[in-house]
Amino acid sequence: MNGVLVSATLKLDRLFRQAFAAEDSSVELFSPEGVRDPAAIDFALAWRPPHGILKRYPNLKVVCSIAAGVDNILADPELPNVPVVRMVDPEQAETMALFVIWHVIWYQRRFDLYLEQQAKRVWQRQPQRSAGETTVGILGLGRMGAVAAERLAGLGYPVIGWARGPRELPGVEVVTGSEGLKTLLARADALVNLLPLTAETNGLLDADFFATMKPGAYLIQMGRGPHLVETDLLSAIDSGHLTGASLDVFEEEPLPPEHAFWAHPGVLVTPHCASDVTTGLVAAQTLAAARAAVSGRPIPNVVDKTAGY
Amino acid sequence: MNGVLVSATLKLDRLFRQAFAAEDSSVELFSPEGVRDPAAIDFALAWRPPHGILKRYPNLKVVCSIAAGVDNILADPELPNVPVVRMVDPEQAETMALFVIWHVIWYQRRFDLYLEQQAKRVWQRQPQRSAGETTVGILGLGRMGAVAAERLAGLGYPVIGWARGPRELPGVEVVTGSEGLKTLLARADALVNLLPLTAETNGLLDADFFATMKPGAYLIQMGRGPHLVETDLLSAIDSGHLTGASLDVFEEEPLPPEHAFWAHPGVLVTPHCASDVTTGLVAAQTLAAARAAVSGRPIPNVVDKTAGY
Repeated sequence: MNGVLVSATLKLDRLFRQAFAAEDSSVELFSPEGVRDPAAIDFALAWRPPHGILKRYPNLKVVCSIAAGVDNILADPELPNVPVVRMVDPEQAETMALFVIWHVIWYQRRFDLYLEQQAKRVWQRQPQRSAGETTVGILGLGRMGAVAAERLAGLGYPVIGWARGPRELPGVEVVTGSEGLKTLLARADALVNLLPLTAETNGLLDADFFATMKPGAYLIQMGRGPHLVETDLLSAIDSGHLTGASLDVFEEEPLPPEHAFWAHPGVLVTPHCASDVTTGLVAAQTLAAARAAVSGRPIPNVVDKTAGY
Repeated sequence: MNGVLVSATLKLDRLFRQAFAAEDSSVELFSPEGVRDPAAIDFALAWRPPHGILKRYPNLKVVCSIAAGVDNILADPELPNVPVVRMVDPEQAETMALFVIWHVIWYQRRFDLYLEQQAKRVWQRQPQRSAGETTVGILGLGRMGAVAAERLAGLGYPVIGWARGPRELPGVEVVTGSEGLKTLLARADALVNLLPLTAETNGLLDADFFATMKPGAYLIQMGRGPHLVETDLLSAIDSGHLTGASLDVFEEEPLPPEHAFWAHPGVLVTPHCASDVTTGLVAAQTLAAARAAVSGRPIPNVVDKTAGY
């Protein structure tokens, strides 16, 4: 089997070659420049592929994302008509849940103020807020959102989740539709975005959305950069309506050095690091998908291109 | 009933008068200066009472701490021979568990480095470490330690707890004795101290103790200041043996402005704020203890003065 590694932003060869070799040393991996016979390429591993590049391979049978999200691949207007596969890592949702929990407690217990105080050698207790007094809203109850919601509920937080349709999750109040979203935004103290990026969710976190949020609430943005209208968030924090935000994903990544988020006192920036799939899992699931595609068997974890996830 | 409020470090009157009035407006509370008839005092609410002050009240029937710890009261060499009561708040252990979880994730995911990077506008992912790769050791499996241990185990951390005697806790490996302590220290990546302060645990966290800890480990000190030999901790971090420490309690509180901990890059300082009992609960449990003592009924939550907790 032969694969091509295509990304406009990451060095996939450096990141994944070793993991693929460990899984199956007979598989050949090429960068687009190194492909002599495009017809010999069976599968692609892609992240933000340059548009139009994947159509060069006439016998391509499957395209795999290196992560749970595929919006970066579906964005190619000339994407060939082959199955697109996402990575599914049960551990990834647990890692994300812990990352989310950390940000909820950061806000709930005002660790931002404690760190400021330490820098000034100030000994001052902040009012203590219990988990029961901190309602967490979760947008998106896919794998990531559902695990985060269940773990937070298990720690004593009131949790409301927003899903496409009715769901049953222990300890979690599930709401749907635009009315459900309004209810959630009015009640959530900490709001966690774990939605997939689709045409419907693009730009959802805008000025209207923030105006509906509970005064003093905090945004934990773990979805995709284009969910958020960045200037609207800055206005909502600067006006005092929101306490602040933890942001792991951005419109442009890496976040440009001149961006206002870096130095904003109400914003905590992390470099899209909340929860990666391990390289070994990417190699194993990509090869499993490629083998299935080559032999005509059903391919696991294929996305619905219309839904976008 | 009449009570006296005694503390060398806190203004108990300002902190608790309102809560007592809300519980029972017929109870009279005095500061030591305001007591005209020492024989009329039934109970004391105390925190670090000046030594020798409590023996002034000949009909004192019970002394209550404002918190779970009573070491600050037992330290009075002239303490009258009356029951000493600790506050027991189920929510306090949950609040402590969340505070501990936050510090474990802070270390596990290296949020210290992410905050440093944000200040320098640096976009750089740190290696991702899963909960399964982060063993948490917990010293003390009393109410606080047991809840922290169970919550951490529920989030996927391997947890080892050190207790006086054998215990059964779901998902937690319990060790005892000095051999058990060595085992725990050799394996724990994050070490949480939630021991009570007794003659045996005073100064336990010293150079020998740190030398036994796993290289690269992290201390989360939530017990009592005198558990820790502060200069030994600084040496263990500065030598590179430990990654760092989160400290909520100190030999001297408030932590003096000139103390080395404030500006040490490996130390996170919080102002003894991990988990307070609420003022309403202090008022209710103190009055319940006082009423029981006055009427000769069994008093709840009396400590064993010999054990020290």
